[in-house]
Amino acid sequence: MAEEAVQRLKQDKADPDEIAKEVAKLLEMKVQLGGDEGKHKFVLKTPKGTRDYSPKQMAIRERVFNAIITCFKRHGAEVIDTPVFELKETLTGKYGEDSKLIYDLKDQGGELLSLRYDLTVPFARYLAMNKITNIKRYHIAKVYRRDNPAMTRGRYREFYQCDFDIAGHFDPMIPDAECLKIVHEILSDLQLGDFLIKVNDRCILDGMFAVCGVPDSKFRTICSSVDKLDKMPWEEVRSEMVGEKGLSPEAADHIGEYVQLHGEHRGVEPLALFFQARQGGPAMERHKAAYTTGQAHRCGCCCTGRPEAWLVSTGGLDLIERLLQDPKLSQNKLAKEGLGDMKLLFEYLTLFGITGKISFDLSLARGLDYYTGVIFEAVLLQQENDHVEEPVSVGSVAGGGRYDGLVGMFDPKGRKVPCVGVSIGIERIFSILEQRVEASEEKIRTTETQVLVASAQKKLLEERLKLITELWDAGIKAEVLYKKNPKLLNQLQYCEDTGIPLVAIVGEQELKDGVVKLRVVATREEVRPVVAWCEGDWLLDSSSQLRPALQTQLYLTLQWCHQVVHGKVALLVHILSVVPKGEIRGVRHCHLMWKASKA
Amino acid sequence: MAEEAVQRLKQDKADPDEIAKEVAKLLEMKVQLGGDEGKHKFVLKTPKGTRDYSPKQMAIRERVFNAIITCFKRHGAEVIDTPVFELKETLTGKYGEDSKLIYDLKDQGGELLSLRYDLTVPFARYLAMNKITNIKRYHIAKVYRRDNPAMTRGRYREFYQCDFDIAGHFDPMIPDAECLKIVHEILSDLQLGDFLIKVNDRCILDGMFAVCGVPDSKFRTICSSVDKLDKMPWEEVRSEMVGEKGLSPEAADHIGEYVQLHGEHRGVEPLALFFQARQGGPAMERHKAAYTTGQAHRCGCCCTGRPEAWLVSTGGLDLIERLLQDPKLSQNKLAKEGLGDMKLLFEYLTLFGITGKISFDLSLARGLDYYTGVIFEAVLLQQENDHVEEPVSVGSVAGGGRYDGLVGMFDPKGRKVPCVGVSIGIERIFSILEQRVEASEEKIRTTETQVLVASAQKKLLEERLKLITELWDAGIKAEVLYKKNPKLLNQLQYCEDTGIPLVAIVGEQELKDGVVKLRVVATREEVRPVVAWCEGDWLLDSSSQLRPALQTQLYLTLQWCHQVVHGKVALLVHILSVVPKGEIRGVRHCHLMWKASKA
Repeated sequence: MAEEAVQRLKQDKADPDEIAKEVAKLLEMKVQLGGDEGKHKFVLKTPKGTRDYSPKQMAIRERVFNAIITCFKRHGAEVIDTPVFELKETLTGKYGEDSKLIYDLKDQGGELLSLRYDLTVPFARYLAMNKITNIKRYHIAKVYRRDNPAMTRGRYREFYQCDFDIAGHFDPMIPDAECLKIVHEILSDLQLGDFLIKVNDRCILDGMFAVCGVPDSKFRTICSSVDKLDKMPWEEVRSEMVGEKGLSPEAADHIGEYVQLHGEHRGVEPLALFFQARQGGPAMERHKAAYTTGQAHRCGCCCTGRPEAWLVSTGGLDLIERLLQDPKLSQNKLAKEGLGDMKLLFEYLTLFGITGKISFDLSLARGLDYYTGVIFEAVLLQQENDHVEEPVSVGSVAGGGRYDGLVGMFDPKGRKVPCVGVSIGIERIFSILEQRVEASEEKIRTTETQVLVASAQKKLLEERLKLITELWDAGIKAEVLYKKNPKLLNQLQYCEDTGIPLVAIVGEQELKDGVVKLRVVATREEVRPVVAWCEGDWLLDSSSQLRPALQTQLYLTLQWCHQVVHGKVALLVHILSVVPKGEIRGVRHCHLMWKASKA
Repeated sequence: MAEEAVQRLKQDKADPDEIAKEVAKLLEMKVQLGGDEGKHKFVLKTPKGTRDYSPKQMAIRERVFNAIITCFKRHGAEVIDTPVFELKETLTGKYGEDSKLIYDLKDQGGELLSLRYDLTVPFARYLAMNKITNIKRYHIAKVYRRDNPAMTRGRYREFYQCDFDIAGHFDPMIPDAECLKIVHEILSDLQLGDFLIKVNDRCILDGMFAVCGVPDSKFRTICSSVDKLDKMPWEEVRSEMVGEKGLSPEAADHIGEYVQLHGEHRGVEPLALFFQARQGGPAMERHKAAYTTGQAHRCGCCCTGRPEAWLVSTGGLDLIERLLQDPKLSQNKLAKEGLGDMKLLFEYLTLFGITGKISFDLSLARGLDYYTGVIFEAVLLQQENDHVEEPVSVGSVAGGGRYDGLVGMFDPKGRKVPCVGVSIGIERIFSILEQRVEASEEKIRTTETQVLVASAQKKLLEERLKLITELWDAGIKAEVLYKKNPKLLNQLQYCEDTGIPLVAIVGEQELKDGVVKLRVVATREEVRPVVAWCEGDWLLDSSSQLRPALQTQLYLTLQWCHQVVHGKVALLVHILSVVPKGEIRGVRHCHLMWKASKA
């Protein structure tokens, strides 16, 4: 159309300006259509803030998931799954200031949908919808936040959360304590170095705000400001409170006194006193033993693990006691209840033997709206430099708390189901482990293949396919190169590259002898044919205690021979050089009678 | 504001019409605010076409995934993951008529995104982006289609796909055959009953269209019509071709002759002839043995498993031979090449021993645009009524094919990476297994808890928490009720309900004796105290061969006693009644010396 217009204008000997205008229009349209050749300019990337996982990364990810799932199962959790999107209104009003980060789906007719922002709100919706009042479940899935990604530091727009939650009416603080035990177990298992779990309680915070003179209506927004204390100094937080949020300077200063109370040294006390004050338990016994013998002791359970390791952290029990004596706080009902709860929690944490990594911290606030009681957050502590006085936090890897009101928001009659839970964020953990693997040059296998079926000469594809069928049907992990006539060297190289430990080689001589040659890739050791005879059933017992590699080898041999000689089965096994004495018993389990002789 | 307006109008004795107008405005505002009480009317549901998975459903789902992942790993696949959404343009132009089913995200500034429609296009994007020319990977994840859901028949808008693909330049038909072997293995493993894998080739289809007189430009759309043959009779498909798509009646009739050629009987031949024609292989040997001895034989591998079971299906090799003789088809280059490929494929399938479940079927077309060679689809066959002449298809559970052009569409220089793959759809499989579990009243455990730590009297919470800490730290899956003083009966009931096999009971007498009582929930058998003494290291070797339940029991006891009596450890174990003779050796592995005596 525009092209015709230009032609027409030219024919009409029109005003050059008018022609130029039409030409510009035309050029713009061409740009919109994607460049001069009309070829589509295509950006080859994943969406902002997301990434693919390569096989190597998946191998590391599986390790992390395994540690986490094992722990969740150890604590008796069931597992559920929910859709990746929810009705938009399900997410509305749950996340406070963070709601702007929710991904909405396009209105394509029908329902308005949003991608889930966390796993907690879908869990609460699930409970209310199915009228479940009592469950302990885990859920591992991706969640979505339109945040500013900082991918080098493990912050993504699509990321995994690993959630464990306990829902139901129970006696106070027992489930809450178990959630902290779980964080402690997982971070210890993953060996990420030193960590600290900060603990606080929304009731204590609200009580504190009240005694400091914060108006009720400002509780949540001032709470959001306090939450920023791990990222900015008190002075900046104070000026946000006073400047942006209109809090009186006196109230702010008063808050300042409290929130800086988590103390520089996490409240430690000498072991000797500690033992006097507390009754045994096995963890205590271990410390006592180490203490009495004077051995170095960094058990990572309730010791600080620093030069002053002979001090044991109480996690802040001393601070709780101090605050209970605080003339103002102790007069506030909420604060008093919260501090009482916190004291009970710490009793349970002491029984669990984990107070050494716990710190009661009045500056911990947590951003989300739905928390109603205990809140906590786990941070990894930097240990690169031993001379650093105080370990530095390198970021949060887990968080959670109690949210007793959320399920009631979904229930038509507002019936409440008290809940407490923890969410492990694996992206940062994953970055650390990935860097560690890179640094260590550890070779990570991305497949589990036990044996490559190879041929020594040409025209043996049919034999290779027959043999690998037997192996697959027997449950053995096996590969074959997709070439009619691959070179033996290439086949061996493939094993080297991918870490396959065994090669089963079919060659003309082997075919003639009715055997298959086995080769251990790492040692280049080859199987010398030893013929033995099997009386009775030759099938390998799947429960036999043989090393997997040996089992594969025997199986290969047995199967192959079975094809070639029927009735009595001729066996070719490199038994004597491969099988250690102790393992030969495994062969007997298969009801095999061995008779060594030269082929 | 509106309320005030009404008041004012009334006071002013205004025109009744004007008052009515204001009242109507007011009512409308109330409706917008959500009903009379101003309370938000909220629909408690998951989005259309989606569902939650309950713990019980997850247990079944895990079984299916395990079977599938085990198979993929057996074939040496790596695993990758990609984001749930892609740039919208990544998906553009890949799905033909189905593109309208793609979920778009709302434009919230930044990139335009869509939820993935399958795992194949993201895989191709991944290969092009990372310049990977050779990989064998699997990917299990949810995909999204705004289809009309039929959830009772296992059709959802959010559903899992389990994909296995082989990318790279290889000798023809070897990877293609492996994909079919994988489908065969998985469907056999899952024991879903009889199934059939239909196979065809896009080259044969295109060649057939050409010789039937279909214009080049109509190939894809006529292909879409042919794809509907599994859902509607030929007459309807024909009228779509002629009526809607403007094909000549002659061409349509010509196509009709070919596509009905898959035959009623899947091309079977008597076993005897079959043996004559084909050389051994172990599967053949098994058939031959059954055939010679006259035993009933339903191996599900390459037998039809029907009354005419002594006929072995060749999967349609006979039909391929017939078409290669077809005067028109054999003159078409594409068709001839396709038929040659198909013949080679069937040679490999015969070596894999799976032709009994394969059917070469000229009516199979597959909807997606990107296929370029072999295509296939697996359907389950209904077997409820043995008198039904011919098994009826109950729906597709897997599909796939070769797509040699897709990666090139993403590569800036159009470099091609040939690919072939299979996608298993688990939703239908899951429905079948779920119904089967319901029918069988099989009790499915949703947790793996080994032992409940219980107390017989009140005020023993502290003791329970100490004991469970020991168990958790030793890797034992243990639970405790979150009550300060639970009744023993409730604790035992919890075990019955959740299937926990063992209870460790702490009571006043046990505390006095320094022991813990163990109870087997199913038999109500209780542990009689047998005291033994341990010399040396008392820790259980984690590699010991003890039954897990016994290991738990021993561990419980050992730990507990260790707390109570130091140095020489008093052991309370129900050894003689629980441990079979053969397993006592496991105890010796722990370097324990046993000395039986009464407590």
